[in-house]
Amino acid sequence: MEIEYVLPTEIEKRSFEIIGKELQDMGITLNKEQEPITKRVIHTSADFDYANTMRYSDGAIEKAKELIRNGAHIVTDTNMALSGINKKRLAEYGGQVHCFMADEDVAKEAKERQVTRATVSMERAASLNVPVIFAIGNAPTALISLYEQMTEGKFTPEFVIGVPVGFVNVVAAKELFLNSDVPYIINEGRKGGSNIAAAIVNAILYNIDK
Amino acid sequence: MEIEYVLPTEIEKRSFEIIGKELQDMGITLNKEQEPITKRVIHTSADFDYANTMRYSDGAIEKAKELIRNGAHIVTDTNMALSGINKKRLAEYGGQVHCFMADEDVAKEAKERQVTRATVSMERAASLNVPVIFAIGNAPTALISLYEQMTEGKFTPEFVIGVPVGFVNVVAAKELFLNSDVPYIINEGRKGGSNIAAAIVNAILYNIDK
Repeated sequence: MEIEYVLPTEIEKRSFEIIGKELQDMGITLNKEQEPITKRVIHTSADFDYANTMRYSDGAIEKAKELIRNGAHIVTDTNMALSGINKKRLAEYGGQVHCFMADEDVAKEAKERQVTRATVSMERAASLNVPVIFAIGNAPTALISLYEQMTEGKFTPEFVIGVPVGFVNVVAAKELFLNSDVPYIINEGRKGGSNIAAAIVNAILYNIDK
Repeated sequence: MEIEYVLPTEIEKRSFEIIGKELQDMGITLNKEQEPITKRVIHTSADFDYANTMRYSDGAIEKAKELIRNGAHIVTDTNMALSGINKKRLAEYGGQVHCFMADEDVAKEAKERQVTRATVSMERAASLNVPVIFAIGNAPTALISLYEQMTEGKFTPEFVIGVPVGFVNVVAAKELFLNSDVPYIINEGRKGGSNIAAAIVNAILYNIDK
C-alpha cells in the first residue's frame, strides 16, 4: 500500500469521512446527536464494533454539554484518560480533570480495606462538592463503587461515562448504570478503555457549541 | 449479569485466565514468547482481533528485553502512552520515557514546515544519542518520519513498536517496517493506539526477568 500525502490539518477530516463512508456501506445510520461521539470513538480505536454497542441515555449529550458549560469537573479512573482529555478546552468552561488513583493515601486505604484503588478514588470524588462527570475507562470497580454509594443514599453522580474494559465484572458493572436513572454514555459489553473515555469527553467538548 | 467478588489482587490473574481459555476455544495457539505480550494487548482492549494481527520480527521480544536491560530509553508519540508506561519499572534499568509532541518548539516547526508534530518529534528523538525503543501508538507520520530518516542514512531506530491507529496511511506506514530489517512489534492493519503501545512496553517490562 502506498503512502499518500495528506496535509496534517486534513488528516482528521479525511479519517472521519472514511468512517462515515464505511458506516454507510455497512448500512449503519447513527443518531445525529450521537454521531460525532460514536465516530470519534471509532476514530480512536479503528473498531467499528462501537457503532453497535454505544448506549446513550435520553438526551445524554445535551445533558453532558450543559454540565460542562456550567463548569462541571471530570473525574477519571486512570492517568492515561486524564492525559488524553483536552484540559485546555475544558478549562474554558471552568472545569478541571481529576484522577485520584495514584494518590498514596488512596493506595494505602485500598490495601487496608481489601478493595481496589478505584473504589476509594470514587469515594474521594464524591466529596469534591462540585458537579462531576465521571469518565471511567478502566476499572469496573469504579462503577460499582459509584452505584453502591448511590443505593446507600450517600451520593448520586450527575453523569457517568462508563467504558471500563475487560473480563471481570465489566459487563455487569455497566449494566448497573444502563438500568439506572443516572444520565450516561456507556459502551455495552467488554470493550472500552482510557482512550475511549478520553475520546468521548473530547468529542463532547469539540461539539459543545454546535 | 451478577457482580462477582474478586480480590483486587486476583482481578488481573483471572482476566488472563479468561483470555487464555477463550483463545483456546477459538483454536488459537500463541507462540510461547509472544503470548504474554499479545495477551496483555487483548487485556487492555478486550479485542481478540489482536491475536491474529500482532506481528513480531524474529527474536523481537528478546531484543527488546536486552535493550531495556542495557538502559534503552522509550520515545513515544503521545502523552497518553507516556502516562500509561510503567516508568518506575523502566527506571530500574536506567531507562526513561520521552514524548516531544506537546513541546512548543515542535508545534512551531511542524506548522512552518507543514508536517505533523510527530514528524518533528521523531527527528528530535533521533538526536537523543542513547539506544531508543520507539513506541508509536497514534501517528503513522511518526513511523513514516523514522523510515525516511533511515532511507536517507541519517538514523536507524534500534527497535520499533508500531501500533498507530486509524484510517489515513496507518496500514501503509506499518508495512514500511514490516518489510524492513529493524526489529519490531507491529499490529498489522488499522488497529492500535496509545493504550496498546503502553501495554506492549509494560508487557515486556513485566516479563523481562522470565
